[in-house]
Amino acid sequence: MARFIDVHDGFVGVTKDQLAAAHDADAAIEDEEGVHIEHAWLDPQSGKVFCLSTGPSKEALMRIHERAGHPTDQVYEVSIEV
Amino acid sequence: MARFIDVHDGFVGVTKDQLAAAHDADAAIEDEEGVHIEHAWLDPQSGKVFCLSTGPSKEALMRIHERAGHPTDQVYEVSIEV
Repeated sequence: MARFIDVHDGFVGVTKDQLAAAHDADAAIEDEEGVHIEHAWLDPQSGKVFCLSTGPSKEALMRIHERAGHPTDQVYEVSIEV
Repeated sequence: MARFIDVHDGFVGVTKDQLAAAHDADAAIEDEEGVHIEHAWLDPQSGKVFCLSTGPSKEALMRIHERAGHPTDQVYEVSIEV
């Protein structure tokens, strides 16, 4: 499995409950693509969200995020970590 | 303490050892600003690095990264996470 960080824009002023709802929307369908979105961090000032995920491919992760209602093409395979 | 994700560009083709060396350069001085850089993820294809940190302020984190030789102004306080 590969590891990914993806970035979403446009979440200015979003609350914890709203972020959790978006995360749950991913979680409800992620198994269908063998994806697991482990964690999401939000800066409500800039509206940026960073998600840490594992999955078979960038495209699989993008399909899950799109179907869950928050598409992004800013998906990076983070093959190295320390 | 606040939580931050910061983003660096320009690490195309960087190896795990090189990323570890950059991370160590931060670690060697981070205590001086009360910062702790917990984790760094690298996509060597795009050259993007994402760091997860805690610290007293965005500026303190930026000073550590600058002194360690890899400045960035893409620093986001991630006050919400799920």
